Amino acid sequence: MKKVLLATTVLALSATVAAAEVKLSGNARMGVVYNGDAAANKLQFSSRVRAVFTMSGETDSGLAFGGTFRADNAGAAANGSAGNVFISGAFGKLTMGDVVGAAEEVVGDLPEVGFTDLSGGLPASISDNDTLFLTGDGSFYASAGNPGALYTYSTGGLTFAVGMNDGFNQVTLDETQAYSIGVKYAVDGYSVSLGYEVADPSVGSAAKHLIVGGEATFGTTTVKAFYGDGSGALSGLKHYGLGVTHKIDALTVKGYIKKTDLGFVDVTAYGIGADYALGGGATLSGGIIDNNLPGTKVRADLGIKFSF
Amino acid sequence: MKKVLLATTVLALSATVAAAEVKLSGNARMGVVYNGDAAANKLQFSSRVRAVFTMSGETDSGLAFGGTFRADNAGAAANGSAGNVFISGAFGKLTMGDVVGAAEEVVGDLPEVGFTDLSGGLPASISDNDTLFLTGDGSFYASAGNPGALYTYSTGGLTFAVGMNDGFNQVTLDETQAYSIGVKYAVDGYSVSLGYEVADPSVGSAAKHLIVGGEATFGTTTVKAFYGDGSGALSGLKHYGLGVTHKIDALTVKGYIKKTDLGFVDVTAYGIGADYALGGGATLSGGIIDNNLPGTKVRADLGIKFSF
Amino acid sequence: MKKVLLATTVLALSATVAAAEVKLSGNARMGVVYNGDAAANKLQFSSRVRAVFTMSGETDSGLAFGGTFRADNAGAAANGSAGNVFISGAFGKLTMGDVVGAAEEVVGDLPEVGFTDLSGGLPASISDNDTLFLTGDGSFYASAGNPGALYTYSTGGLTFAVGMNDGFNQVTLDETQAYSIGVKYAVDGYSVSLGYEVADPSVGSAAKHLIVGGEATFGTTTVKAFYGDGSGALSGLKHYGLGVTHKIDALTVKGYIKKTDLGFVDVTAYGIGADYALGGGATLSGGIIDNNLPGTKVRADLGIKFSF
Repeated sequence: MKKVLLATTVLALSATVAAAEVKLSGNARMGVVYNGDAAANKLQFSSRVRAVFTMSGETDSGLAFGGTFRADNAGAAANGSAGNVFISGAFGKLTMGDVVGAAEEVVGDLPEVGFTDLSGGLPASISDNDTLFLTGDGSFYASAGNPGALYTYSTGGLTFAVGMNDGFNQVTLDETQAYSIGVKYAVDGYSVSLGYEVADPSVGSAAKHLIVGGEATFGTTTVKAFYGDGSGALSGLKHYGLGVTHKIDALTVKGYIKKTDLGFVDVTAYGIGADYALGGGATLSGGIIDNNLPGTKVRADLGIKFSF
Repeated sequence: MKKVLLATTVLALSATVAAAEVKLSGNARMGVVYNGDAAANKLQFSSRVRAVFTMSGETDSGLAFGGTFRADNAGAAANGSAGNVFISGAFGKLTMGDVVGAAEEVVGDLPEVGFTDLSGGLPASISDNDTLFLTGDGSFYASAGNPGALYTYSTGGLTFAVGMNDGFNQVTLDETQAYSIGVKYAVDGYSVSLGYEVADPSVGSAAKHLIVGGEATFGTTTVKAFYGDGSGALSGLKHYGLGVTHKIDALTVKGYIKKTDLGFVDVTAYGIGADYALGGGATLSGGIIDNNLPGTKVRADLGIKFSF
Repeated sequence: MKKVLLATTVLALSATVAAAEVKLSGNARMGVVYNGDAAANKLQFSSRVRAVFTMSGETDSGLAFGGTFRADNAGAAANGSAGNVFISGAFGKLTMGDVVGAAEEVVGDLPEVGFTDLSGGLPASISDNDTLFLTGDGSFYASAGNPGALYTYSTGGLTFAVGMNDGFNQVTLDETQAYSIGVKYAVDGYSVSLGYEVADPSVGSAAKHLIVGGEATFGTTTVKAFYGDGSGALSGLKHYGLGVTHKIDALTVKGYIKKTDLGFVDVTAYGIGADYALGGGATLSGGIIDNNLPGTKVRADLGIKFSF
């Protein structure tokens, strides 16, 4: 029995040490991407492989803390412009680093389609599934290279969020300060959310953005919608969209349609995609997106995503 | 017994979770490098330390998948120009990312000498152990920053390989498309291999390369040879070489000689080195290389390599 | 009992494999930094999260070897300008890579204050806790992008150190060669140290630096002092400083005062800070530093540090 007891002791010891720990996980993808807008080489191989560090710990008084970043953005994580750090307890959760604004935290984006998510095509995310927010994805006001802060507090079905980006870019001088608040109420399969955000650049007038969102799940179908309205420097902005996710066993079909009216240009974009779970962390995935902007063409992809 | 059973359960659980996993390993080296071609500071300290992520998983239907990259090329791995991702099954193995061409896959390079391998001295790998291929090491046509694809299929002693680089460099526009095929037959301690590759740049005529290789192992001695012949844009190229690896207990002695005739220049290069295994992953290693090109001088190194 | 025995076997197997291993740990911090010298945005969020690879192994003859670097400096670690590699045995310890000089190895810096350590404000480390050495922190002669070597040998309370930077920067040509020696004698809670270093640039005369240090621990209080004197190209340099660290249960109070006379400018700098251990690897930490240089203002921070 001696050896067996030793084994038990070793395991117990490991469990104690694990209180503050770093977990290593990863993801990868491989496939082909078709970009109708490219001048040549429209069809291309696409692959990537990434590792993720996830750290967690707990203070003696029971506050949880942790952080996460990817190996490929380790440099940016070391100056606060990628990855994030958090501390949480009864008071809520405070996260710093590459955080979303409070409006994005509660409203979020439409479903991603394709194994690469096909984002990044046109400015202001007008052609992809990302919703336009004043900080973060596709924003005119996003301040790279600068840690932001996001505070969230949940009680019952209510979530409150307050975000702030303090307007100093460590690389170039970027004086845009951004503030955001959000609230979300979720009950059973339904949720409604409201966000308001202000981006105040050092030059020019402030941009303001009010956005409402809603999500409903019926069985294996989830429908999501948002309506956003700009004011101040973004007084011309109106955008709204609808996304649907439907699961049939291992298959998930996803689609979105959204309209972005920037005042000087008005675009309707749509995308559809499907994921098929192969088990063990592998998913066959493809998608196609397009929009009605003259001169732009369809983009599509097909590949396999892996998680480790 | 309760605690012991718990230990058993925890271990069983870990084994299941490990189906898709990320393993962390590493390597390092330290020593001195002598570069006779340097204007000053011919003798220099040299050290490095690197970490390697190796990911693996399996779909429900038994397809294996995975990926690998190093921490120091995490950024490039995230855009497909370093590291690689694969999926394999009864159909063979498809790998994407920073893959070698099919000709290099089956023929390979001559033995590395020295703790740093002493490569990188002269263009087209004419002075070091790397064999010149149209994609990859020392090539005029290598397309950096661009995922390639390599398909291999093995049955009995036969290996077939097909490679493709799709000619789009994500950083600069690089339209060189490369195709390669290879076949290898291995039986007991012998193998023969044949590779053919074409690099087709957007400007200028295509380069073609036919290469044959052979390898034989007698006891603890391995002899390797290749002969390659260029055509098209590389019609002047003829190169051939011979490498020998000989093991005596913990000691491995390695050497190569090769002749590269590029048409306008004809170089004979040679290298010799020795590794002495210290156990536990440490190897004392040194090498010296030289060539008959006027004005070039000897390069040598001596140091310790570690694997973790 | 079969399963239980299996568990024991698996554990025993793991212990053997661990002989050469890579350990993953991490650290993070979040808080606010006040920089009185900034033109605008004096108060800023600051956060970061980092992962650390620590590798270790042992040869068959009992020599220990290993290496370490952070994910965010993986690229530099792969060319020897960050992280380090070592081998050690009865002969002492030889470390290569981003190593301190022998003088810094034995004398060291004054205590760090604040959760960010508030360093990096003024040249030559004149305003922060780092002691000026000819290689390393804040030095005029530091040679980035170049592996250095440090040899240390300890016997009883004596430590000898010899350092060398070989003067070749892999990025730009940097011909400064640096040599350093150090000796330290520690007994009970006391230590005295002596370091001498020479930086010999390819252009201009050599800089020399003699430095003595001492440290004494009384109960939970540690007092540290140094006096350094330059000659040659640094003949105007005289600097001395005092640091105190005092622990009261979970609280650690730290402070330093130092005077740096560079000949053309004479600065007295001071800093004070406190750390409060929250347990589990979390520490609440704040600090404030200032100096008597006209036109410079106070810098301070307050935040939480985490180790995983």
